[in-house]
Amino acid sequence: MTPEIITSLQNPRVKNLVKLRDRGPRDEQGVFLVEGYRAIQRALEKGARPREVYFAREWFLGENEDELLATAAACGAELVQLGREAFAKVAYRDRPEGLLAVVEQWRASPGDLKLSPVPFLLVVEAIEKPGNLGTILRSADAAGVDAVIVCDPVTDLFNPNVVRSSTGVLFAMPVALATTEEVIAFLREKSIRTAATTPAGDRELYDVDLRGPLAIVMGSEQFGLSRRWLEACEARVRIPMAGQADSLNVAMATIVALFESVRQRRSS
Amino acid sequence: MTPEIITSLQNPRVKNLVKLRDRGPRDEQGVFLVEGYRAIQRALEKGARPREVYFAREWFLGENEDELLATAAACGAELVQLGREAFAKVAYRDRPEGLLAVVEQWRASPGDLKLSPVPFLLVVEAIEKPGNLGTILRSADAAGVDAVIVCDPVTDLFNPNVVRSSTGVLFAMPVALATTEEVIAFLREKSIRTAATTPAGDRELYDVDLRGPLAIVMGSEQFGLSRRWLEACEARVRIPMAGQADSLNVAMATIVALFESVRQRRSS
Repeated sequence: MTPEIITSLQNPRVKNLVKLRDRGPRDEQGVFLVEGYRAIQRALEKGARPREVYFAREWFLGENEDELLATAAACGAELVQLGREAFAKVAYRDRPEGLLAVVEQWRASPGDLKLSPVPFLLVVEAIEKPGNLGTILRSADAAGVDAVIVCDPVTDLFNPNVVRSSTGVLFAMPVALATTEEVIAFLREKSIRTAATTPAGDRELYDVDLRGPLAIVMGSEQFGLSRRWLEACEARVRIPMAGQADSLNVAMATIVALFESVRQRRSS
Repeated sequence: MTPEIITSLQNPRVKNLVKLRDRGPRDEQGVFLVEGYRAIQRALEKGARPREVYFAREWFLGENEDELLATAAACGAELVQLGREAFAKVAYRDRPEGLLAVVEQWRASPGDLKLSPVPFLLVVEAIEKPGNLGTILRSADAAGVDAVIVCDPVTDLFNPNVVRSSTGVLFAMPVALATTEEVIAFLREKSIRTAATTPAGDRELYDVDLRGPLAIVMGSEQFGLSRRWLEACEARVRIPMAGQADSLNVAMATIVALFESVRQRRSS
């Protein structure tokens, strides 16, 4: 543990933590931020590699923080104590809990994924909002997919709001990044059928066989799926919609498509 | 139109608009806030009654604002122009669009609802987060329920974040408010079957018949459904869950239950 307490808001480490909210510095340094007791705990449980954990006792909410710090140290993290104000500056959540970890990023390609005997995948193309990507990861976890493939990413997987809104699923769920062409080639090679979910789908979700090796494919908030994906997919399905055209956003449509797959696959 | 432009941040109208972010003043005055072009447009389309519309040309983003103001005036709204800074003070959204309406609240009881021949309802008990309630309203709209019954409300239906996250559905979807006992009595009188969604459900969602007169019943984020509701419901269903126990929040569980109902009911 670094013995002194950093109190200066001008300290280079403090300044760097603020920088890491932006993608450029995160990618350059190959790390990202994980804030709060629960998120850090989940990161450690799932084998994420913490480089540093910054803490400020004045902000602690519970009694188990020291144990968590000890675990982080055992995982190789440097522990750095901050003063109250310095921590307030680096915290990005509404209620600071006095814990902020700098964790190593990871990268996986589709080829790195371990697929189950009857693969079940979610592919998302160019999702824009971090909150949607985080919610989608949660849905994928709840539905028990093998992995999520993020295609032509717009939102950085390691954006603080993805970390937060995924409620720890980011650390547990295998996620691969690749281009559209790479993913299409991968799915074909593995003989995994693809179902694109789109308002222009020619069949209703419930009329399509979603058993067997399957990838559900979802497009971006604003543009939906690219033409390339729409043409490459074996099925184009639509979710029956009452009400306003925009009542289902991409995260909601994803969970509906995933759980219809779950329903069909449980009896197969 | 009030001829002068209000520029003082101390103007009583400006101060009142800030107050209306809180429930007490909203309920006392029987109004709530609707901000932004699209939300106000939807409110007017659906017959909401605007008392006042505050606008600030400096913040306008498009070219149709004047037409919207004219429509609002034709619906009986007083138009009040604010200066740039005064509007910034009253706006609660991140990007002000220079339009903020004060709209009359409404109240409906279950008995006021128009039910379809085979009723399909959503009952939510004591939802805490406005964002969840708004998302739930969107899901209910997409699933085509007759109405949503909000039971023992914790979150005020007219909270600005419910208005925002419902993306206008609040103005279109019939919503009734009542106590648990009133709702249970109402559903029994109408012979509407109830399916409680709970992690402790004894049957999987997919094994339960959700056709016929039906109310899906959802509990609060923190506590789930009350014992009273769990006992009163004809079926207690659980959503099959892989992954982390908390991957499905109440809004996500609601949409899964609603769309499984949609699937079953379309073939009935």
